[in-house]
Amino acid sequence: MKTKEEYIDSLRALKPELYIFGEQIKNVVDHPIIRPSIDCVAATYEWAERQEYSEIMTATSHLTGEKINRFCHIHQSTDDLVKKSKMGRGLGAYTGSCFQRCVGMDALNALSITTYNIDQKYQTEYYQRFLKYLKYIQDEDLVCCGAMTDAKGDRSLRPADQPDPDQYLHVVEEKKDGIIVRGNKLHQTGAVNSHEIICMPTRAMREEDRDYAVSFALPSDAKGIIYVYGRQSCDTRKTEAGEMDTGNILYSGQECMVIFDDVFVPRERVFMCGEYEFTADFVEKFAAYHRHSYACKSGIGDVLIGASQLVAEYQGISRASHIRDRITEMIQLNETMMCGSLACAYEGRQEASGTYFVNTLLANVSKLNVTRFPYEIARIAQEIAGGSLVTLPSEEDLKNPKIGKFVSKYLKGVEGVKVEDRMRVLRLIENITMGTGAVCYLTESMHGAGSPQAQKIMITRESNPERMKNAAKRLCGISS
Amino acid sequence: MKTKEEYIDSLRALKPELYIFGEQIKNVVDHPIIRPSIDCVAATYEWAERQEYSEIMTATSHLTGEKINRFCHIHQSTDDLVKKSKMGRGLGAYTGSCFQRCVGMDALNALSITTYNIDQKYQTEYYQRFLKYLKYIQDEDLVCCGAMTDAKGDRSLRPADQPDPDQYLHVVEEKKDGIIVRGNKLHQTGAVNSHEIICMPTRAMREEDRDYAVSFALPSDAKGIIYVYGRQSCDTRKTEAGEMDTGNILYSGQECMVIFDDVFVPRERVFMCGEYEFTADFVEKFAAYHRHSYACKSGIGDVLIGASQLVAEYQGISRASHIRDRITEMIQLNETMMCGSLACAYEGRQEASGTYFVNTLLANVSKLNVTRFPYEIARIAQEIAGGSLVTLPSEEDLKNPKIGKFVSKYLKGVEGVKVEDRMRVLRLIENITMGTGAVCYLTESMHGAGSPQAQKIMITRESNPERMKNAAKRLCGISS
Amino acid sequence: MKTKEEYIDSLRALKPELYIFGEQIKNVVDHPIIRPSIDCVAATYEWAERQEYSEIMTATSHLTGEKINRFCHIHQSTDDLVKKSKMGRGLGAYTGSCFQRCVGMDALNALSITTYNIDQKYQTEYYQRFLKYLKYIQDEDLVCCGAMTDAKGDRSLRPADQPDPDQYLHVVEEKKDGIIVRGNKLHQTGAVNSHEIICMPTRAMREEDRDYAVSFALPSDAKGIIYVYGRQSCDTRKTEAGEMDTGNILYSGQECMVIFDDVFVPRERVFMCGEYEFTADFVEKFAAYHRHSYACKSGIGDVLIGASQLVAEYQGISRASHIRDRITEMIQLNETMMCGSLACAYEGRQEASGTYFVNTLLANVSKLNVTRFPYEIARIAQEIAGGSLVTLPSEEDLKNPKIGKFVSKYLKGVEGVKVEDRMRVLRLIENITMGTGAVCYLTESMHGAGSPQAQKIMITRESNPERMKNAAKRLCGISS
Amino acid sequence: MKTKEEYIDSLRALKPELYIFGEQIKNVVDHPIIRPSIDCVAATYEWAERQEYSEIMTATSHLTGEKINRFCHIHQSTDDLVKKSKMGRGLGAYTGSCFQRCVGMDALNALSITTYNIDQKYQTEYYQRFLKYLKYIQDEDLVCCGAMTDAKGDRSLRPADQPDPDQYLHVVEEKKDGIIVRGNKLHQTGAVNSHEIICMPTRAMREEDRDYAVSFALPSDAKGIIYVYGRQSCDTRKTEAGEMDTGNILYSGQECMVIFDDVFVPRERVFMCGEYEFTADFVEKFAAYHRHSYACKSGIGDVLIGASQLVAEYQGISRASHIRDRITEMIQLNETMMCGSLACAYEGRQEASGTYFVNTLLANVSKLNVTRFPYEIARIAQEIAGGSLVTLPSEEDLKNPKIGKFVSKYLKGVEGVKVEDRMRVLRLIENITMGTGAVCYLTESMHGAGSPQAQKIMITRESNPERMKNAAKRLCGISS
Repeated sequence: MKTKEEYIDSLRALKPELYIFGEQIKNVVDHPIIRPSIDCVAATYEWAERQEYSEIMTATSHLTGEKINRFCHIHQSTDDLVKKSKMGRGLGAYTGSCFQRCVGMDALNALSITTYNIDQKYQTEYYQRFLKYLKYIQDEDLVCCGAMTDAKGDRSLRPADQPDPDQYLHVVEEKKDGIIVRGNKLHQTGAVNSHEIICMPTRAMREEDRDYAVSFALPSDAKGIIYVYGRQSCDTRKTEAGEMDTGNILYSGQECMVIFDDVFVPRERVFMCGEYEFTADFVEKFAAYHRHSYACKSGIGDVLIGASQLVAEYQGISRASHIRDRITEMIQLNETMMCGSLACAYEGRQEASGTYFVNTLLANVSKLNVTRFPYEIARIAQEIAGGSLVTLPSEEDLKNPKIGKFVSKYLKGVEGVKVEDRMRVLRLIENITMGTGAVCYLTESMHGAGSPQAQKIMITRESNPERMKNAAKRLCGISS
Repeated sequence: MKTKEEYIDSLRALKPELYIFGEQIKNVVDHPIIRPSIDCVAATYEWAERQEYSEIMTATSHLTGEKINRFCHIHQSTDDLVKKSKMGRGLGAYTGSCFQRCVGMDALNALSITTYNIDQKYQTEYYQRFLKYLKYIQDEDLVCCGAMTDAKGDRSLRPADQPDPDQYLHVVEEKKDGIIVRGNKLHQTGAVNSHEIICMPTRAMREEDRDYAVSFALPSDAKGIIYVYGRQSCDTRKTEAGEMDTGNILYSGQECMVIFDDVFVPRERVFMCGEYEFTADFVEKFAAYHRHSYACKSGIGDVLIGASQLVAEYQGISRASHIRDRITEMIQLNETMMCGSLACAYEGRQEASGTYFVNTLLANVSKLNVTRFPYEIARIAQEIAGGSLVTLPSEEDLKNPKIGKFVSKYLKGVEGVKVEDRMRVLRLIENITMGTGAVCYLTESMHGAGSPQAQKIMITRESNPERMKNAAKRLCGISS
Repeated sequence: MKTKEEYIDSLRALKPELYIFGEQIKNVVDHPIIRPSIDCVAATYEWAERQEYSEIMTATSHLTGEKINRFCHIHQSTDDLVKKSKMGRGLGAYTGSCFQRCVGMDALNALSITTYNIDQKYQTEYYQRFLKYLKYIQDEDLVCCGAMTDAKGDRSLRPADQPDPDQYLHVVEEKKDGIIVRGNKLHQTGAVNSHEIICMPTRAMREEDRDYAVSFALPSDAKGIIYVYGRQSCDTRKTEAGEMDTGNILYSGQECMVIFDDVFVPRERVFMCGEYEFTADFVEKFAAYHRHSYACKSGIGDVLIGASQLVAEYQGISRASHIRDRITEMIQLNETMMCGSLACAYEGRQEASGTYFVNTLLANVSKLNVTRFPYEIARIAQEIAGGSLVTLPSEEDLKNPKIGKFVSKYLKGVEGVKVEDRMRVLRLIENITMGTGAVCYLTESMHGAGSPQAQKIMITRESNPERMKNAAKRLCGISS
Repeated sequence: MKTKEEYIDSLRALKPELYIFGEQIKNVVDHPIIRPSIDCVAATYEWAERQEYSEIMTATSHLTGEKINRFCHIHQSTDDLVKKSKMGRGLGAYTGSCFQRCVGMDALNALSITTYNIDQKYQTEYYQRFLKYLKYIQDEDLVCCGAMTDAKGDRSLRPADQPDPDQYLHVVEEKKDGIIVRGNKLHQTGAVNSHEIICMPTRAMREEDRDYAVSFALPSDAKGIIYVYGRQSCDTRKTEAGEMDTGNILYSGQECMVIFDDVFVPRERVFMCGEYEFTADFVEKFAAYHRHSYACKSGIGDVLIGASQLVAEYQGISRASHIRDRITEMIQLNETMMCGSLACAYEGRQEASGTYFVNTLLANVSKLNVTRFPYEIARIAQEIAGGSLVTLPSEEDLKNPKIGKFVSKYLKGVEGVKVEDRMRVLRLIENITMGTGAVCYLTESMHGAGSPQAQKIMITRESNPERMKNAAKRLCGISS
């Protein structure tokens, strides 16, 4: 396994074509807006190195028997699934941010099921290709970006019916040794911090969408791939002189638009090509795995609850009954989310390929709560933080020789608390509820792994109305 | 194990002193208000007999190696705890009611931990007594009523400080071969349907409350025990000529006030007597177990969702998008509750006595959701049911030769649905949201196993604020 | 104006054909299940007699200049509309129930607008007929039942397309001096307590539904009208020997199915007959007026909050911070509902006929809150009440010489509170949250004046998206 | 009255001592971060000039009979209070931001009551001073900053008990012609955009806090007053080259820390000095007025609903039933808030001084909803907006010759919509839910005019539990 430092060094060797604020960036690793997001992925390496987290952060490869980072692992038991939940929460609490590596893990696991199933039907060799690729990922301990969401153009039209055929990523040419693809993937988490990008279809495809039923993997700096860095609330605070005002002084997330401008994919890295009837199941498998991954939000919730408790103590109100009630409510919501993630893991089952898969109904139920509860937790955090959250002077004001003394005097709060510490924790709450952190704690909770309506559709589909109707009929005496 | 019929017969042999509507009842088993609650307990025997439920309904006794009803079992693994969750949901869906047998199971399991722990400290013999008693319960396949809630008198005063010393159940005399107890237990679920009653202290006791630190078991018809049957919404519909208007035509719950009018308890059935310092842990253990038991509400939720889906179909609105959205929301809430019950079971651990115990934090989180979600599910059920829920004519009107034809004509709804069936399912929804069933689905969800504030206190206590504060401090750079 | 006693006497003179539990009732007034609902209507007369309520309970007729009961009044100003809100809340708090007289008032006011508008287009004489009828109502101080909801049959079909043409009330024959109508009105509040029944179309009609576009008034005991009394939760407690267990010992509501079995309506009482293009507006006018009427729920809310405060005091927990917080939340929800009712009244405007009409958007917003908040207030009331709410012995048990002493001893609560009083207030909370009162406080709040979806449709229609979109466009610089 | 341009020019004449990011700013008016907040105040002048808003934006001075800006007016009727609500909503929708001028208006109105009441008791001349001052404000059409919130130090200590006596603003010296004050006011909305600053005590004072019972007015650039500009989420986007990424390209709010470093106040501008027993009522009056002012949030809500509707249309999902349902819910919450503001205005009453005052209970109920509903509206807006809200490339990327074409191609959405417009409206939603606008739409809604607990305390105090308890007692037959 790579160390944290080796990971960062390995990124320096990559040469992705990246734009940010309209400019091409050559040195990705040291860019002040990007670096905290790299450090955040690096935490997934750091924790794997640490003995105390060994059990949740590493696993034994079912291919090689070697110890590997869990993010590169194919789940071999419900215990693996549960540890994935706990790893997510742990890293969420450690980084207070999106550590970006779960999408690739979820893509690998979904591929391990779907490629196997396609082969069963068509005697193709996708699964063998996939296993070979997986071994490479595990051996090199690589970060994969799982790329699913297409641009979609006019959403009322299916892929093949779009006026612009590139609105969904598709095969534009088949060559002897591979394929040429064109299109776009939006909202790609951690894309430029990844070694590899794994593309998947974004929805169920029909026969006429055959060219869009494509899945493959590429090095992230493959020729023809262009990245445009997404803006985030308060992103440029990371470029300012001080550090306090960023709130989370260590980490951040990353979202990119990824353009495929006629990119060549070698045959051995193609995992689906035209088998449209497997797209629906592929998408559902990936989606359920990824909905399970939202245990990380309970980790960020831990940070926000801790910050709220701290600010209450710093402001001398932590024993007020209404504050304690509010803190308890935050915990209640945070743990309810975690229960969902745990339950869908524990209730998982084995697929034909041997991979363990989460309980789909509960994974969707869990994620639907994640589209709601972090917003309420954030609201309560703002309630506890008080108005200073949005009226606080800047770090520069605190350090200014003339007015710093006034800032210090009048933001003092409880005896024994440093004004700077009070400001720091308020900035952290600002970060998670309105700033860079809110991107992943709130909006990504809403839309990552599919928007709420996607979960509702799956919940309806996965529930068993006949069972429930029959239970009701029996009790009230309806025989028909 | 007893059959369902043997259970009912065994009740006939008991002679409890029972009052209902101010009258003493001699034939308990055939009383029309009581009988459906007996049939409901009987379902726990019926399911244990059925092959398809064998795995969740039965267990292997760790004392005898015999196959026993799970309600008599001491949990030997997290798998046992998970099966308890699933048994609860299954029976909840089967009965649409409170099947009354979990309190005793939870009392037995809490006793298995506490009696062991007392013995470790004091070299007492409670645990051996308990095991002997347990073997009797298992061998005879008995129903135990777990009795905890005292009258409490003035709630601002502790037991020993009450003007009336009987407001909490206590030892009034120690005899050579046993003790005499006096007091009261309120809200006793299934009390007269039980063979045994197991008393536990209702709160943490101090040294001066020593006489109140008492736990024991008695046959339910022991001399001096008096039962007063609690009224429930719509209870007397069960005495009417027809059946439809009861809603749930098969089952109901039962709550009694239980008076201990100087009752003798033989020494070998005393499981705690004065060891006040173990009361807090005893109460918490029982409470956590019992909060875990509320998986049954997801079962009743299944019935209510099924009934709502049925009524939507009968009324021709089941495909309307807003109705589908409402059904999905019911499922979301119902499964979120279930996730909590499962998670606290899966995350359980072994106690010193060998018994498996649930995760306390998650058990409390789970139960706190149960104090909220069934009310919202019930609200949605009423939304879907429409106004007929509360304006429907009686069964007698439907059957009346003169006006029955009008009732039939004008309540017809969708072609192919019998008017009677539409009325039946509406009555079932009425039962669960306002009638007899609402007692257990709503109010018992609120207060059973402790009111919401009790869960909040435990959630605060079981959470780890230091861990969360440290996570926050690190991220914003607070070193102190 | 009639006195309360005169009103009750006037009912004795009526001979409606009424069935309850499959039996025809001759003496309506003294039937134990019906009488509390009559007494509840009578409260609208009683309050009008009382000097202190004179301003809100009475008005000056714009026809005669006489002082009349406000329930017979056509609103002449926004002040009238506001007083209607306050009258509703006052009577709700006085009766803790549905006083049944607002539907007729709302029907009269809607008719005053629609009949005028039809006449403007067609030079018909509906408005003059209506004014003559109104004068009669005002002079005699009569109760009108406003009848809107039809059986509807298959809800996916419009009236004229139903297999059974009677699923919507319609004209089956035109005679020289009147019309013959057939059909049914469901959920008719206070129907047998009314002197008159005013029928209105239940939805917008098309040209082919012309026969269904009919409105008229009849004496409630007109030949051919048949009433079937709707069951309510706990209805038969009113027939028991004691009084305590009814909870609300004074009042209740009433809902009937009303069958029109070829009933003749004289020409001068027909207010619409075939003018289908006015049905949509008629329905919307009535609905908005009636949605405004739900101020009464804030009155019942007052009772429930008062009862919750009482039970908290009786149980010695009223000063606990979490209880106070819960009481405040109840008030918050209750007053928020009231704000909606007041706002839609104050923001009313004059129609062409001179009648004042409420703000439609806000009336719908207000009612939509009423479909939600009473359920949450009820949930909180149950939280405060504690488990005794559903485990309390009966009145007969309390009065039983043998066990009454135990009931008294163990339900004592705080020093100085009579056990009977504690039981009474618990029964009142049971009544409003699960019993007879819940019919009007909960389910009627949900479905009365249209189910939530009906309000949502109106809110969408009455809002001004173009205004809001333009505001957004300007701020972000979109010029197209 | 001043024109918008005259207002901006008048600010140039002021020389406040202002720091931002640790630097003193000499040219306040043209600073890119400050200017949008000045333009926002200027909108209050612009609207007053426009004929179509004349009725809500202007009033007739009760002092001079001249037409004045309503923000300088003392309310003479409930109609004035209602127009204040509508002015707030109108300007909220016009600016999508905090226009900062209501705090001063609320301070003037509270002073008009309190100075009159003090004079009645002590024959002081505060009211005459106030009227003279008011005439000046009205004649010159000035903006006043209403300054209330003190630093508070250790919140468990009252003002006179603080280790640092300056934690609450206080009189440090009385001179013949005035007083010297020292201390701090936090969270001062629009402070450097104001001509005047009006200080008020922040809480009820005791006799020993006499020096803290002080109210006065000063020119905003009086010697010794120092301003430190509060940071806001995304504040520096206003300094970037483009405009789109600010979201709201026209306006923003402003919050400052205001330091009083031994400032002299001339006698004729002192409105309270030591009359501590009037502080509680003063604070409550101001607070109720200011809670009423939150009608502006329904205006910002209009913008957010409009933006959400636009983005749904631009993305081709506006007709999906779940999107329509979500838009309706936003309107429901937004109008419910407005109902509260209107109701507390309409239900206002006249004070002894002649000033009209809002209904305190309803003003607090209204504001408590404002601490909740905007967060839910914002959550729904994010749900509708989709993930692009937080992954969108920058304006510079769109305009970049190389990658702009890709951005345009892949963010196209529905035919006929400019990509730039889609990006603009997404940025506006980002602004209001996470950026500069979120400061006023969310956090200020939570804490402005007092945090939720302050409203709860007032709601408890202003409600009438005895009335409600008596209503309950009568209905269940409790005579004691």
